[in-house]
Amino acid sequence: MIGDINDKFYFLYERERLKVEKKLGKLLKDRNPASLYMPGSYILEGGGKRLRPLLVLFSSKAVNGKFSSAYNAAIAVELLHNFTLVHDDIMDNADKRRGRITLHKKYDVNTAILVGDSLLSVAYESLLKDCNNIAQPVFAAFTKGLVEVCEGQSMDKDFETKRNISIEDYILMIEKKTAAMAEMCCKIGALLGGGSYKEVNALSNFGKSIGIAFQIQDDLLDIIGDEKEFGKSVGGDLVEGKKTYLFLKAFETAKGEDKRKLQSVIDRKGIKQNEILIYRLLYEKLGVIEDAKVEIKRYTTKALKSIQVLQNEEDKDFFTWLANSLIKRNK
Amino acid sequence: MIGDINDKFYFLYERERLKVEKKLGKLLKDRNPASLYMPGSYILEGGGKRLRPLLVLFSSKAVNGKFSSAYNAAIAVELLHNFTLVHDDIMDNADKRRGRITLHKKYDVNTAILVGDSLLSVAYESLLKDCNNIAQPVFAAFTKGLVEVCEGQSMDKDFETKRNISIEDYILMIEKKTAAMAEMCCKIGALLGGGSYKEVNALSNFGKSIGIAFQIQDDLLDIIGDEKEFGKSVGGDLVEGKKTYLFLKAFETAKGEDKRKLQSVIDRKGIKQNEILIYRLLYEKLGVIEDAKVEIKRYTTKALKSIQVLQNEEDKDFFTWLANSLIKRNK
Repeated sequence: MIGDINDKFYFLYERERLKVEKKLGKLLKDRNPASLYMPGSYILEGGGKRLRPLLVLFSSKAVNGKFSSAYNAAIAVELLHNFTLVHDDIMDNADKRRGRITLHKKYDVNTAILVGDSLLSVAYESLLKDCNNIAQPVFAAFTKGLVEVCEGQSMDKDFETKRNISIEDYILMIEKKTAAMAEMCCKIGALLGGGSYKEVNALSNFGKSIGIAFQIQDDLLDIIGDEKEFGKSVGGDLVEGKKTYLFLKAFETAKGEDKRKLQSVIDRKGIKQNEILIYRLLYEKLGVIEDAKVEIKRYTTKALKSIQVLQNEEDKDFFTWLANSLIKRNK
Repeated sequence: MIGDINDKFYFLYERERLKVEKKLGKLLKDRNPASLYMPGSYILEGGGKRLRPLLVLFSSKAVNGKFSSAYNAAIAVELLHNFTLVHDDIMDNADKRRGRITLHKKYDVNTAILVGDSLLSVAYESLLKDCNNIAQPVFAAFTKGLVEVCEGQSMDKDFETKRNISIEDYILMIEKKTAAMAEMCCKIGALLGGGSYKEVNALSNFGKSIGIAFQIQDDLLDIIGDEKEFGKSVGGDLVEGKKTYLFLKAFETAKGEDKRKLQSVIDRKGIKQNEILIYRLLYEKLGVIEDAKVEIKRYTTKALKSIQVLQNEEDKDFFTWLANSLIKRNK
């Protein structure tokens, strides 16, 4: 899914990803009422990189824990992630997710609201199975992730109509909407693996920084991504008038006619399909594609620096591989 | 709010209710983003009996715990309850709740989805504050309540289109949708108060039985309630074609023309406003109003029987007063 097939870490990642995939596939199958859990299963079969559960598992391993002590927690974070996707897709009125029909389009909005809620309920249920004597800090971390993802989503919605958004506002929003979740995954994994305070902190910071890099990369891929690989239409963020890292950086940098062009994206709440190339060229002229790459690199370097306290070299190498794979990804 | 003003338990209940009310009023006031927490505050200001948080507090007290050890948990269950109300109101396309405009009508559906989610996130956050060394069982009970309320809501939605629903199906549905929550409130209170296994069980069972009685009473009030007091239109369940305890009991009992009349409620998915009296008279003829009263009494007696293991007579008297007040309530 990510990385080079010739890499040994690729196999390790894939081996664990397939285990997670299998567990997710079975999770809701025999539960009742089917009206609730069948649509839930549909969502969980949607595939994806499964990055969040894998962060849990490898963070556990990195503090000398076992994968097996964190599978339920890994499932929990993926359920939490899917809860957000189901509800976000309603709010965005999205038709497709990972190339498949969104839940509220396949069923209806009411079903999607309730199935989202239910995925979250099963997430907590699953998390409980892995945390016996350290339930308090694990639940605290998980809940903090949930609180922040709601706040981040609210900020993101606010941005649609707000006119003056700074890069700082944007970073705070993605810290909450994307990075807090990655931070939480690493923290929970490290806690369940029995990590020291220092290790838990190091991995949490890794998750947070990699989460920010991941989101800016996502914004970048909207402009430079390969449509078939990325799974979304290139330029889609511009068409929707989304205030991405690139857009805000461009708006901050531009002057005169360029600034007016960008202002019109805000005023018109997006651009037409046939204008995408014009704006891509503008982004290139203003250097924001390069700026985004620099920021992604900066946050990735920060992430890797924070895990230098880990003891095992192979674990450090794994996270380095993972971070670099995410930078190089095209979907 | 409930009970007779001349009763000492009324004052005790009111004293604690007002404390809960005050805490709820302040809870989200200074949090950001305001776009998320202002609508959340609007919901929490809606008043109500606050039965669920009070069950937490008095269950804690009944096992020799302190009220003060369970306020955050009390807030948590009220937040969870309000999360379900906000999402249920979207699903029912309800205009009003406790005499006030519903959240999705005051704002919009997207805001209401997200605010509901956020109330749940703050519920877990609040719960965390009260459970230190017994986080695992408290979180397990709370999460079980959440899982079941989602399942119950899904079953309730299924009932709208299902044709053959038995009284047993109905009881299972309200066990999940209403009773599981009351059961959870009592259990959490008892756990936080340091109750023995026997006490926790007794109070959980009290909550479950009282929850079932409460829901059948709610169904009954739709037919015999005082409109102004009840806060909903009398006969509303019939107009909407809801399969309540009374309707299902009537359908089970009726024969011939009566049965056809009831069948037409299912076929037409509800009745007209001017038919309410006809159906009320049919209910009386079939004896289902009396049947409902008997069932309410039966579950209330069961509830009171289960708490006989409590040591303090005054606590038993309080719960007896509470159970009787709920039976006598008209809203």
